[in-house]
This record gives sequence, structure tokens and C-alpha cells, in this order.
Amino acid sequence: MITRINHIAIVVEDLDAALGFWRDALGLPLDKTEENPGENVTIAFLPIGEAEIELLEPTDPASGIGKYLAKKGAGMHHVCVEVTGIDAVIERLVAHGVEMINETPRVRDEGTRYAFVHPKSAFGVLVELYELPEGP
Amino acid sequence: MITRINHIAIVVEDLDAALGFWRDALGLPLDKTEENPGENVTIAFLPIGEAEIELLEPTDPASGIGKYLAKKGAGMHHVCVEVTGIDAVIERLVAHGVEMINETPRVRDEGTRYAFVHPKSAFGVLVELYELPEGP
Repeated sequence: MITRINHIAIVVEDLDAALGFWRDALGLPLDKTEENPGENVTIAFLPIGEAEIELLEPTDPASGIGKYLAKKGAGMHHVCVEVTGIDAVIERLVAHGVEMINETPRVRDEGTRYAFVHPKSAFGVLVELYELPEGP
Repeated sequence: MITRINHIAIVVEDLDAALGFWRDALGLPLDKTEENPGENVTIAFLPIGEAEIELLEPTDPASGIGKYLAKKGAGMHHVCVEVTGIDAVIERLVAHGVEMINETPRVRDEGTRYAFVHPKSAFGVLVELYELPEGP
């Protein structure tokens, strides 16, 4: 089941410059900034309602996000859709002929399970599915 | 004040095909589909949490959205951020040197006031501001 947009990820060249728009000019709060060495990005998290804007600055031009930035320029990178029962959601997508980048969810340190839908199956949009770990 | 993501707009070539992914495979409900003759698009509205996915199919290749599709292909077109006090939000943006496409909000039939931020001021993202009319 799909519950909400978890985040919109935006690739930027310079996190500080982008915060000048999203935080300083538009007025969104900055929750935190953190390195994600696995994906070679620094991420700024800005809550907005029940979702977040995530600004991604690549730390390595040879990484996936770095190459994306070089090829396409700054802009929206993906939309993350929060779900419950991610395995059943993926099964349903595959049954409809959707190509997944990850047919088996990957797991982040804090327990979030995630999988990407291939943009060619989602009409040009890179869609991430997120299942948050159950609370205590 | 920024309250939430109102919608993410996605440009598609064929609304029915795109609904095959967003509605049929992913499982989002389709609230309605409507023509917007002013912008030469047919729009499908799919609620997701407090926001919506809007799928836009251009009805005229010479329109703004039609040209966007021809040039960039299907994909995310803009993110719409809901605000209260849109005039003050725009004033603050302009004071920070942000370039607006609409410095004065435009008004839709149902009373929603909206304005676009120029993507060059928002690091490649086309950002729409929305102020909904007050309820009865």
C-alpha cells in the first residue's frame, strides 16, 4: 500500500548555494546535513509537511549522481514513495511488467528497505520505494 | 509560510499508458482527469498522502508543455509547494534575489493563487507556489 511521498531528491552542484534558495529564501527548515559515503553524496534534509526535500551534492564526479549531474545538470532526480509491504508492492509491479532496478529491496543501516523502479517503466521518472522500519 | 508539497507534476506522452504504471501497477487511486484548455494539457490527479501526483499530457505540441516534452522527454516537470501568505513568500524570495516567472500571483477559476519561480533561481527545479482559497 502506498502511503505518501517520503521525499523528492534534487541533485545540486553546490549544497550551500542551493540552501540559499530552499532554506534562506523559501524558508524551509534544515533538519540535518549528512554524508552518505555509500552513494558518494552529501545530503541536506529539509522537512516540508509530511515529506522532505533532499538536496544531493555528489562528492565524486565518477559516482552515479556525479555522472547524472554532469550529463543532465542540476534538477529533480527522483521521487520516493513510502509504502507498507514493499515486497507485495514490488510483486505487483513486476506482475504488471514493470522493470525494477532492485527486485529485492536493499536495506539501509537504520532498517529502511528500499528499491528503485527503472525510469523506463515509469515514463521517465526515477521512482524509489521506501518501507520504514517499524517503530519501537 | 510553507505548509506542504501540494503536487508533483509529471509530463507524459500518453496519459493512459502512464496510468498503467501509476494507477494500475503502483496502485494509486485516480481522483479525476480533466482538460486544462488554458495550458493545453489533460491532467490526471492521483492523491498520495497529503499531496498529489499530476500527470500532464499536452494536447498541443506547440504549447509550453508540448515543447518541453519534445525537448526533454517524459519526466518530472515541476514541484508545487503550498504556502500561506503567497505575497509575503514572493516578497521574501525577491528580496533574496530569486527570479520569479510570476512576481504577481495568477489566479485559477476556483480561487487558487499561484506563481512560478524561475528554475535558474532554484537550481534547475521549476517550483510552483500555491495558495489555496480559504474554505467556506
